[in-house]
Amino acid sequence: MNAAIIVAAGKGTRMGTPDKLLMDIAGRPVVAHTWARFDACGAINEIVLVVRPEQEGLFRKLGQGMRKPFKLVPGGKERQDSVWNGLEALSPAVKFVAIQDGARPCATDNLIEATFTAAKQSGAAVAAQRVTDTVKESTDGQRITRHLNRSQLWAMQTPQTFRVEVIRRALAAVREKGLVLTDDTAACELIGQPVTLVESKDPNPKLTYPEDAVIIERLLAGALPK
Amino acid sequence: MNAAIIVAAGKGTRMGTPDKLLMDIAGRPVVAHTWARFDACGAINEIVLVVRPEQEGLFRKLGQGMRKPFKLVPGGKERQDSVWNGLEALSPAVKFVAIQDGARPCATDNLIEATFTAAKQSGAAVAAQRVTDTVKESTDGQRITRHLNRSQLWAMQTPQTFRVEVIRRALAAVREKGLVLTDDTAACELIGQPVTLVESKDPNPKLTYPEDAVIIERLLAGALPK
Repeated sequence: MNAAIIVAAGKGTRMGTPDKLLMDIAGRPVVAHTWARFDACGAINEIVLVVRPEQEGLFRKLGQGMRKPFKLVPGGKERQDSVWNGLEALSPAVKFVAIQDGARPCATDNLIEATFTAAKQSGAAVAAQRVTDTVKESTDGQRITRHLNRSQLWAMQTPQTFRVEVIRRALAAVREKGLVLTDDTAACELIGQPVTLVESKDPNPKLTYPEDAVIIERLLAGALPK
Repeated sequence: MNAAIIVAAGKGTRMGTPDKLLMDIAGRPVVAHTWARFDACGAINEIVLVVRPEQEGLFRKLGQGMRKPFKLVPGGKERQDSVWNGLEALSPAVKFVAIQDGARPCATDNLIEATFTAAKQSGAAVAAQRVTDTVKESTDGQRITRHLNRSQLWAMQTPQTFRVEVIRRALAAVREKGLVLTDDTAACELIGQPVTLVESKDPNPKLTYPEDAVIIERLLAGALPK
């Protein structure tokens, strides 16, 4: 069985508003679009949403429009704690799990399924896109200290899809070492688990800044070429 | 004296159309917005546009709406050849030069001036923005091979502003070694010239993909919060 954990407990401080996940885009909250993608995806059997406890009622209401069984679990202190809570809530039969940012509402069926296919082979897979910017490293924020090879750079997105046993073990290692990681693939590095890249062929933006909402609205309304 | 070289000879293949620079956004071609920013900037005395020879007439027409003297020079094979041609056309009195992507129309006065201030101190400066994506390296495009520290990553933009003598020497080194570089700051590395980062505080996107046009239109129309 396959599950999705939708991480929807963040505060979205970079948006300048406390509740970017609930921002109305193309007729409903961003997070409802994200949820609906997984609700409609044939590869997914079960959905866990990690939410802020005070928003449980609200999510239960959003869930009335969904078809698949879902569970709501409370978020933790850091993102990794929220994912951990989500993993704890999975049915025992779930062997593979996609972890998804609640604020990334455009993941396609093809992309979701491709991450499961890759995770079945290697244990861990991440949706990713080639970096189009020229990116350089600066250790002090003042001067360029290293030039990176753009052709080798990939921007991580979600879904990040794992054999459940793998991501449990990886996050346990993170907790044991007292680390805080913003990204689940970094946890895999800790246990020597390779992570396969799955190229996102369609735009798969995350709502981070106000200008992202403009793009996402157009994409969800089907107005942009894919 | 300060000059700007606006590189407007590219083909914009990633847009799916041959002439992204001429795409109409908020009432005029993107490149005319870019040009107008430098035309209006108090720090700039002279403007050189590097254009495709068959478009000289068109640019001459666009120039009728500008106030500052400008020169049109033909583009070269690679971006670096176009910049080189632009440098060759500068008046002898020009000591500092900003090199600007023609498809990046939102550079503010503050940003342009800050790059000149920094280049006067260090010889080379680049507008840059902190990277918000989690970026990883993959040498084969299949697996993540290195996790990078996001807090040390910066996306390069333009203007990239140099002491004229510095960028001439850097690009001469590139030509001598037969290299092709997509970015003028990389040329500085070749001659051991440090490059100062100037943080772009306002959005400063480049028109690369069709979805960028949506953002740029809103920014140029003043509809997005800065």
